[in-house]
Amino acid sequence: MDQILEYIEGNKSRYLDELRDLLSIPSISTNPENKPDLERCAQWIGDHMRSVGLENVKIFPTPGHPIVYADWLHARGMPTILLYGHYDVQPVDPVELWTSSPFEATIRGENLYARGSADDKGQVFIHLKSVEAYMKNTGRLPINLKVIIEGEEEIGSMHLDSFVRKHRNLLQADLVLISDTSMFAKNVPSVCYGLRGLAYMQVEVVGPNRDLHSGSFGGSIHNPVHALCEIVAQLHDKNRRVTIPGFYDHVRPLTKKERAAFKKLPWSNSRYANDLGVRKLYGEKGFTALEQVWARPTLECNGIWGGFTGEGAKTVLPAKAFAKISMRLVPDQKSERIAKLFEKHIKKIAPKSVQVNVKYVHGGEAAITPLESPGVQAAVAALEKGFGRKPLFQREGGSIPIVVQFKQLLGLDTVLLGFGLPDENAHAPDEFLNLKNFFGGIRTITHFYNELPHYMKMRRKK
Amino acid sequence: MDQILEYIEGNKSRYLDELRDLLSIPSISTNPENKPDLERCAQWIGDHMRSVGLENVKIFPTPGHPIVYADWLHARGMPTILLYGHYDVQPVDPVELWTSSPFEATIRGENLYARGSADDKGQVFIHLKSVEAYMKNTGRLPINLKVIIEGEEEIGSMHLDSFVRKHRNLLQADLVLISDTSMFAKNVPSVCYGLRGLAYMQVEVVGPNRDLHSGSFGGSIHNPVHALCEIVAQLHDKNRRVTIPGFYDHVRPLTKKERAAFKKLPWSNSRYANDLGVRKLYGEKGFTALEQVWARPTLECNGIWGGFTGEGAKTVLPAKAFAKISMRLVPDQKSERIAKLFEKHIKKIAPKSVQVNVKYVHGGEAAITPLESPGVQAAVAALEKGFGRKPLFQREGGSIPIVVQFKQLLGLDTVLLGFGLPDENAHAPDEFLNLKNFFGGIRTITHFYNELPHYMKMRRKK
Repeated sequence: MDQILEYIEGNKSRYLDELRDLLSIPSISTNPENKPDLERCAQWIGDHMRSVGLENVKIFPTPGHPIVYADWLHARGMPTILLYGHYDVQPVDPVELWTSSPFEATIRGENLYARGSADDKGQVFIHLKSVEAYMKNTGRLPINLKVIIEGEEEIGSMHLDSFVRKHRNLLQADLVLISDTSMFAKNVPSVCYGLRGLAYMQVEVVGPNRDLHSGSFGGSIHNPVHALCEIVAQLHDKNRRVTIPGFYDHVRPLTKKERAAFKKLPWSNSRYANDLGVRKLYGEKGFTALEQVWARPTLECNGIWGGFTGEGAKTVLPAKAFAKISMRLVPDQKSERIAKLFEKHIKKIAPKSVQVNVKYVHGGEAAITPLESPGVQAAVAALEKGFGRKPLFQREGGSIPIVVQFKQLLGLDTVLLGFGLPDENAHAPDEFLNLKNFFGGIRTITHFYNELPHYMKMRRKK
Repeated sequence: MDQILEYIEGNKSRYLDELRDLLSIPSISTNPENKPDLERCAQWIGDHMRSVGLENVKIFPTPGHPIVYADWLHARGMPTILLYGHYDVQPVDPVELWTSSPFEATIRGENLYARGSADDKGQVFIHLKSVEAYMKNTGRLPINLKVIIEGEEEIGSMHLDSFVRKHRNLLQADLVLISDTSMFAKNVPSVCYGLRGLAYMQVEVVGPNRDLHSGSFGGSIHNPVHALCEIVAQLHDKNRRVTIPGFYDHVRPLTKKERAAFKKLPWSNSRYANDLGVRKLYGEKGFTALEQVWARPTLECNGIWGGFTGEGAKTVLPAKAFAKISMRLVPDQKSERIAKLFEKHIKKIAPKSVQVNVKYVHGGEAAITPLESPGVQAAVAALEKGFGRKPLFQREGGSIPIVVQFKQLLGLDTVLLGFGLPDENAHAPDEFLNLKNFFGGIRTITHFYNELPHYMKMRRKK
């Protein structure tokens, strides 16, 4: 292991040169004119996979951008990791706000600035360099590795689902590993072990059969905007809990261990409120802000509209009013059940003076990888060795659809080992990757490959 | 008087021919390409005024379309009526939905179909024919008459205010007479003696300083859409009364006489609800639908918006949410005071977790012409003679800004003597004027000119 780590140390400047080369390809997936660049980038990744010693490299075409596959499967009896990443990047507009050209990676201070440096080419590259260090020094990996790097993550991964369905056997593994997230803060390595799910609804409140003059009719019929506001206002109680009956039925409570782990994270409510520009925080009683966002189900109105919304005044009593309302879910809530409870409740509390239609737009399940699972345990050990610091535990309030897909289609839990930083400007000008995190990431992944079999065996022995 | 009424009877077909000629001019005020037609229409009106015996005809240019003035001021000691009307019309789109060409007036059944037939050329013409009948038969009018017919009513009368201010002396009179409204129903002649006022507000609820991801932040801060809904939901109580303290302080109660008068109007709650397509009516407890709309102050959200309002789903926790909220006012509420009470109340009930800004967009006062006033009394007598039926009393839930302007600038009450019908399609295809109402209108106005001095004297005697 020392030899491998020394190799990494000795090749830092070459690693950076190669990464600069990868980052110079403008693989903006949403721009049709960059299609050749995406092809070129997939080719670059495939070539590089081959050069570091991965096998069976294959570039799968899709109706959109290609998916690059490779593997190394000679560690008999050892666990198999399915590594996922993406080589496509966000657009660079407004390009004039970049300090240096987005596709000419530039080091300033301890950061490397370029589009894709953090999200996600830089993090994909971390894994390739770890593989290289193993292969050049030992001729083998301590685990079996399957890799898929797609080119459409920034535009919704629309062809990944059918790819995974079609290649279920090819992709069988013991766990999924993804490096596409951020650490909790600078110098605070962390493991993200949970994501929230989603049930996204649309509510339509129908009043009169046409827009009416609010002078000639106002006062005699129920304005659908008012009816909608009355409905939305009833969806939370005084303790800011969601009032839908049954909503909390299957919520897995936070364990003492989890709550203690969250408390260890560096956190300031007032700094958080200041950063968001709000006077005070506001959430479910009895929980901290991080608990509210990561581990409690919530209901938010994502949009509302009805009547006249232009400049000035129009005295209309509108025929309809609309709201988009989504609920973030936690284990073990099920999105379809929650959508049904929502619809039932809305129809029950809707005033009889209006008609209410509820549509389930889409949803997805929450995901959690138990803290005691070998993947998380190995990640903890690897991060501690890679960064010289005990990592902390975090969850994430949003969803990562591919994590849910891997769980549903392949039955696999995911370990999220991200080396970005919260302020890395992933979708904005001056995206950067912290170089300490880049090299710490390579070391961590190297350790992770080495540690995982140990924790897997420990579980089997139990 | 008999001679005058016989003259009207004997000239019906010529009247219709002349009206057809007036209606053939496409005086659509909003279309720049029709500007010459508006000039021509103003000229036509001026010429016709002269031909029926009015004097001092003058066409006042404005930065928009001209205002036509005329008078006849030789009835010494008699009251002076300021007649207001407009010669401009609404656009005709969708023109393919017209049964006959909008500018070729066509009689079908008992109606004359053409753009402007009811709103308002046909009603202006009623007055000119009444004047003609007097002048041809007696050489004089029983009252003094000043007439202004403008060409921008359908686009907001934007140059009328400065015209009235500039010609305050020229326009001095005892009352304003307007024929630009409808009777309550076919064969139900009615006098409209009250209009509601308005205070139009905009509310802005400010939450975080930027749009946030509802997954990563939802649950920890107050969503401004929710805060707005909570505010709007609190603006009415269980009896659907407005909850703003002081809101009802200066509301003039309905008199027994008024309530009795409204009860005489042909009305069906279920027909009204059916026509509007609502399951049930909904308004302030203790009042009928007509009372709610005509004589009670109300509060309506005219528009609401915030967050994502497009197709599909976007998981945003928006930075801001907005509502346009207007209050219809009745005598003796004052719009500026109500606007202040509104702002104070909104700021008081707004959650401390958000910031709320309130803007007063514009307002206007309610107007009422007492049932006992000579103008209303004369209108009642005139309608009974003109239509052979006792008229009923009504108010109107909307505002007519010029009525407020005449009150504010000239100190004059207005009598609204309208001969349209509620289903006349004033701003839609197949606009029509009922011919019974047209000729009944000419008779009524003739009687009104004759009756007014009598009622004015009665008041002076009291």
